[in-house]
Amino acid sequence: MSISGTKSKLLVLTSPAKSLEIRERIVPPPSPLCINIEVLRAGVCGTDVHLWKGDQPLPGSVVLGHEGLGRVIELGAGVKTDHASNPIAVGDVIYWNPIRPCNACYHCTISQDFTACENGTFWSLAENATVWASYTQVATLLPNNSFYKVDPNVPFDAYIALGCALPTILQAIDHLGQIPGGSNVVVQGAGPVGLAAIMMAKLAGAAHIICIEGNPVRLEQAKSFGATALVDFHQEGLQTVNARKSHINDIVGIRGVNLVIECSGNAAAFEEGIELLTRSGTYLLVGTWAGSSKVQISPFDVVQKALKIIGSTYCSPSCYYRAAHLVQANYQKFPLASCVTKTYSLERAQQALEDVAAGKVVKAVIDPQA
Amino acid sequence: MSISGTKSKLLVLTSPAKSLEIRERIVPPPSPLCINIEVLRAGVCGTDVHLWKGDQPLPGSVVLGHEGLGRVIELGAGVKTDHASNPIAVGDVIYWNPIRPCNACYHCTISQDFTACENGTFWSLAENATVWASYTQVATLLPNNSFYKVDPNVPFDAYIALGCALPTILQAIDHLGQIPGGSNVVVQGAGPVGLAAIMMAKLAGAAHIICIEGNPVRLEQAKSFGATALVDFHQEGLQTVNARKSHINDIVGIRGVNLVIECSGNAAAFEEGIELLTRSGTYLLVGTWAGSSKVQISPFDVVQKALKIIGSTYCSPSCYYRAAHLVQANYQKFPLASCVTKTYSLERAQQALEDVAAGKVVKAVIDPQA
Amino acid sequence: MSISGTKSKLLVLTSPAKSLEIRERIVPPPSPLCINIEVLRAGVCGTDVHLWKGDQPLPGSVVLGHEGLGRVIELGAGVKTDHASNPIAVGDVIYWNPIRPCNACYHCTISQDFTACENGTFWSLAENATVWASYTQVATLLPNNSFYKVDPNVPFDAYIALGCALPTILQAIDHLGQIPGGSNVVVQGAGPVGLAAIMMAKLAGAAHIICIEGNPVRLEQAKSFGATALVDFHQEGLQTVNARKSHINDIVGIRGVNLVIECSGNAAAFEEGIELLTRSGTYLLVGTWAGSSKVQISPFDVVQKALKIIGSTYCSPSCYYRAAHLVQANYQKFPLASCVTKTYSLERAQQALEDVAAGKVVKAVIDPQA
Amino acid sequence: MSISGTKSKLLVLTSPAKSLEIRERIVPPPSPLCINIEVLRAGVCGTDVHLWKGDQPLPGSVVLGHEGLGRVIELGAGVKTDHASNPIAVGDVIYWNPIRPCNACYHCTISQDFTACENGTFWSLAENATVWASYTQVATLLPNNSFYKVDPNVPFDAYIALGCALPTILQAIDHLGQIPGGSNVVVQGAGPVGLAAIMMAKLAGAAHIICIEGNPVRLEQAKSFGATALVDFHQEGLQTVNARKSHINDIVGIRGVNLVIECSGNAAAFEEGIELLTRSGTYLLVGTWAGSSKVQISPFDVVQKALKIIGSTYCSPSCYYRAAHLVQANYQKFPLASCVTKTYSLERAQQALEDVAAGKVVKAVIDPQA
Repeated sequence: MSISGTKSKLLVLTSPAKSLEIRERIVPPPSPLCINIEVLRAGVCGTDVHLWKGDQPLPGSVVLGHEGLGRVIELGAGVKTDHASNPIAVGDVIYWNPIRPCNACYHCTISQDFTACENGTFWSLAENATVWASYTQVATLLPNNSFYKVDPNVPFDAYIALGCALPTILQAIDHLGQIPGGSNVVVQGAGPVGLAAIMMAKLAGAAHIICIEGNPVRLEQAKSFGATALVDFHQEGLQTVNARKSHINDIVGIRGVNLVIECSGNAAAFEEGIELLTRSGTYLLVGTWAGSSKVQISPFDVVQKALKIIGSTYCSPSCYYRAAHLVQANYQKFPLASCVTKTYSLERAQQALEDVAAGKVVKAVIDPQA
Repeated sequence: MSISGTKSKLLVLTSPAKSLEIRERIVPPPSPLCINIEVLRAGVCGTDVHLWKGDQPLPGSVVLGHEGLGRVIELGAGVKTDHASNPIAVGDVIYWNPIRPCNACYHCTISQDFTACENGTFWSLAENATVWASYTQVATLLPNNSFYKVDPNVPFDAYIALGCALPTILQAIDHLGQIPGGSNVVVQGAGPVGLAAIMMAKLAGAAHIICIEGNPVRLEQAKSFGATALVDFHQEGLQTVNARKSHINDIVGIRGVNLVIECSGNAAAFEEGIELLTRSGTYLLVGTWAGSSKVQISPFDVVQKALKIIGSTYCSPSCYYRAAHLVQANYQKFPLASCVTKTYSLERAQQALEDVAAGKVVKAVIDPQA
Repeated sequence: MSISGTKSKLLVLTSPAKSLEIRERIVPPPSPLCINIEVLRAGVCGTDVHLWKGDQPLPGSVVLGHEGLGRVIELGAGVKTDHASNPIAVGDVIYWNPIRPCNACYHCTISQDFTACENGTFWSLAENATVWASYTQVATLLPNNSFYKVDPNVPFDAYIALGCALPTILQAIDHLGQIPGGSNVVVQGAGPVGLAAIMMAKLAGAAHIICIEGNPVRLEQAKSFGATALVDFHQEGLQTVNARKSHINDIVGIRGVNLVIECSGNAAAFEEGIELLTRSGTYLLVGTWAGSSKVQISPFDVVQKALKIIGSTYCSPSCYYRAAHLVQANYQKFPLASCVTKTYSLERAQQALEDVAAGKVVKAVIDPQA
Repeated sequence: MSISGTKSKLLVLTSPAKSLEIRERIVPPPSPLCINIEVLRAGVCGTDVHLWKGDQPLPGSVVLGHEGLGRVIELGAGVKTDHASNPIAVGDVIYWNPIRPCNACYHCTISQDFTACENGTFWSLAENATVWASYTQVATLLPNNSFYKVDPNVPFDAYIALGCALPTILQAIDHLGQIPGGSNVVVQGAGPVGLAAIMMAKLAGAAHIICIEGNPVRLEQAKSFGATALVDFHQEGLQTVNARKSHINDIVGIRGVNLVIECSGNAAAFEEGIELLTRSGTYLLVGTWAGSSKVQISPFDVVQKALKIIGSTYCSPSCYYRAAHLVQANYQKFPLASCVTKTYSLERAQQALEDVAAGKVVKAVIDPQA
């Protein structure tokens, strides 16, 4: 099957707050070391909503979509394997990393933290001849867009359900080391990032996994992923930090809370997270993408309680690879596919952004071939 | 409930190859920092069979049993919590560590590897006033016998199924670091240690988990724990190392085998394990408790392939604690309780040893209250 | 040599802000597993000054001194080795850990972080029959006071120079992992903790080691320990955070500051430390023992820059052991002994506290035999 | 300064056992992302001797030299920084990594172990237009040849002294984790790799560093790098494994040997290394580049003693970077430059190979500008 030369639809965000535009392009044949893929699923991430709303500046007109599952349709010269060294062929289903590291800076060659690459490229500009983003019918992966073959017998929705959230949590846990079995864990927020955190805590054998969230649908989902207790902050008696702290400490008992994972994106959650931690506890900050609010912290407490506060953002190629394998190994034990509340065509993608913004869905997904 | 002053039956191995003797003792009240427990389940470990057969020298007449689940019946003065700092009370169900570290040697205070304690005590001598071993109705835990409260709503058989095998595998994985998601793993042998290895590989998201074993019942059990492929070394076409290597490489493909876990206890497995590994692979040796056979190794291969060979034996208190929590979190996803093929009374314990020796059961368990 | 039965002088702090009292006691013979030692050097730590000033509540009249080098004079029954398993005998010189872990809580048996022991004992009460603290002529170490034999040919002052500061920094680096060679490191404060940080950064091959400090004597000492640049915050042009940040960034260049180690104990240093860090940097908080001041932090910055903030307090026995060995291996390369600006007799110890409080000395040391 | 278009001499090995040939080439201008450098020092590595002797097959006529220090003379388009993100300019002195990773395989993108890259390129073929190897006057570094700016005020010989040996040891220690302070370390062999191992053990605060070697010049050098005891296997009374084991155990005492580092390249050292280790010890195999000899090992011993055996080969870019910084931080404390026993012109390079083969020098270095 060859597709270069035919037309492909794509969605372009030309400026903040404007609706996405549908355009068409002629698909170019893949350059050496590149591949063309038919996009099977594109996840709608909270970051897409932030971009659409203008919470971050854009470098120009861009194609959105950094979560994607695709089918290989054309291989550029020299492409014989995926980035895990598995043979690759037309027809294979793959999961790809939207960020391209430079492979030549301090973080790429020395600290070996690709998420910190100083020259990484993320934006898929509408003016480019190729599109690597996922809100399109056909995407073209460039040489450093690492991609990994996945098992095509696993439901596509199971892969895309946690989109970039599962790799992001894996990266954060890498920074942490591991979640020790028997830990008492609090997860702040139960969007896709929070659900991924709950799943990883469950697999690690956490003793208590307590989810703080205000949306009833998300609370339900948290339970189905393995949360052992739910704290609805809208519920009477749980509306203050002190009340929640007291309630949570009753649940976990004298051992206290060992790990808090911030997945709500709300800066106000920070002070509560620190407050909940017991001696030697860790606060993993993953979700805070909102503005520049400052909050209070007592350095003395951090020292006396020997706390760790770990910020994590983006994720390395290995996290995408491991995420795909965790999905394959566990999709029958965790209701991954059922997170995908609603699937939209490219034509309806604008509605997807709006539904996510309104908190109407757990995970919205675009099927560009629909 | 108080039990000190009443009689308790116990099983004594007086010398190798002799049948276990049933004796009785008057249960002493617990000394300060000690506790008396009613033993609910005692696991029969392959090591018990080795001891009974005389494969290792005994220090005198001993009470067997280093895997046990019990219910607290008397607390000595000063015992207010378990060794995880949870409040403890009469009636609580606990899981305990049979080895007592000295807390005063290089490994206890500096390397912090309790399994290497130079003065650790393991043997429960029949001549002692107290018995900490599990082949008894009432055991007495001494101050350094760490014990951990467990959830009494989880089936007791789920805890005892993997006995010391699951903590032993956790210790081995601690030495390794972790099993990376997406790895290709070979497990040699599918007794309780092998099953624990398969379970941990599954939870970690291994891509392929291949079990080499010759016993059809164990092969079946391996599959139910998550092995993705079974290699029966009695099967035609798989009876040589080369044939198995070729077969396994066909399964895992070009990526090769990243991790081999030796759980068979057969020294001959060593050369096959090394042979199977790809570049940068790791060989985790857990099961080799049999004699002093020497095998061949090429140092050049170890260097050129950058292999790691990691021997692991015993396990630290933390492994018992984490094992209990992994059971609690995952007993509905893995058929743990069903590993317990047969339960024996104390009077029938000799039969249990013989059944394990004959490979008739996956896991034999003694119920001393039966 | 036997000393039990003879008199020993000791210094007692009866209540905050009062001068230390000299008392005498009859040295009791050591109980089993205990040892009596003649104290050769007692370090005066900033914490002693805080206690004397009443910055922390006291549990009663206490003997001060948690840094000590001593000579074994009597061994209790059963003591054959130090806590590194080396044979021990009367006459050996040892370095000891003032904190006794319980060996039976979550942190002692599971997280294996002795610094977090929930039942650890630290205070040497004046009312006790034995004194383990170091402001005394003869101290008695209890079973869990880990102690380590040291090379008696190394100058005693080299060991005591960094007192609990070097073990404390080693513990903090354990929490961090390691200081990567080639890092750009900023050390805030150049008291003993800061000097220990500079020494460890030097040994690790840091590229730049920049010390921020206002005391000229300490700045000089920082340089002699390996600081590659000094930032005197009293100097014109370096009196604001922004000026220092700009100056430091000029020194380290585009790579930025990878690690800041807080050793000043001043909560105000926190915001500057965070501000200095580049992407993926780490802030190690060691020195903040002062009150409960709150400062500002932006969670968004922590996430976007993927920062780690690590609080560390106390140190485990292994840190004492490793500190002694680092001193032995490096005392000729670092001017350790010369940090000991002044040595005081027990009778002059009150003056030592006052000199430290006034910043008149880098390290004050008591010689109880003088 | 521009040099492209001028002539540069280079040394070519056309087939095993033949003398190196001097040739000339016209230096091409650097392609985009490449740089031309004037080679200041080229280290003669034992591997060069193996290649010259034909111990490994060659892919054709090759330019030797994988250890080099050079001065930048021409920057290709787009080169603005070194691979540590430091600004780079004509005139800067750099240290470079001879191996180019593919950045697209399992090990480059997932395990992040560049030494295991499946498509790495190492050979500098004589037929190529460019030469990246160091036995030449002018070399051309290709985009993935990571290079790092070094301090030009440190003696060039200090950098080149440990050539690829120091990065190789750093990589091996990365596989190990770290050398714990207070360890008892045995280093087998005191060529450049062994000296690098001794230096790192010293910096880590090892208690005993014992070097086993037969060459008196190397033994002397081992001492000057910090070995605390020398074992000359030619000396009477130390000619058998048992005698050396007994002698070494007398030195280290009851704690035993925690770490053995194999730097001799002799397969026979393997059994002695394993034999020397105490419980929980580690054997780091770095030097075994000689043939395929097999030796004996007891899997039971590996398990019972909980040993780790770690093979390591090659080194990642970060090791080159950190090596340069360790040299800069420590060259005045360790006699690095004095390892360079003799410096040769390009015309005399053949003699250098022969001198190394004959064990006449500790480190032979070529100065291509001489």
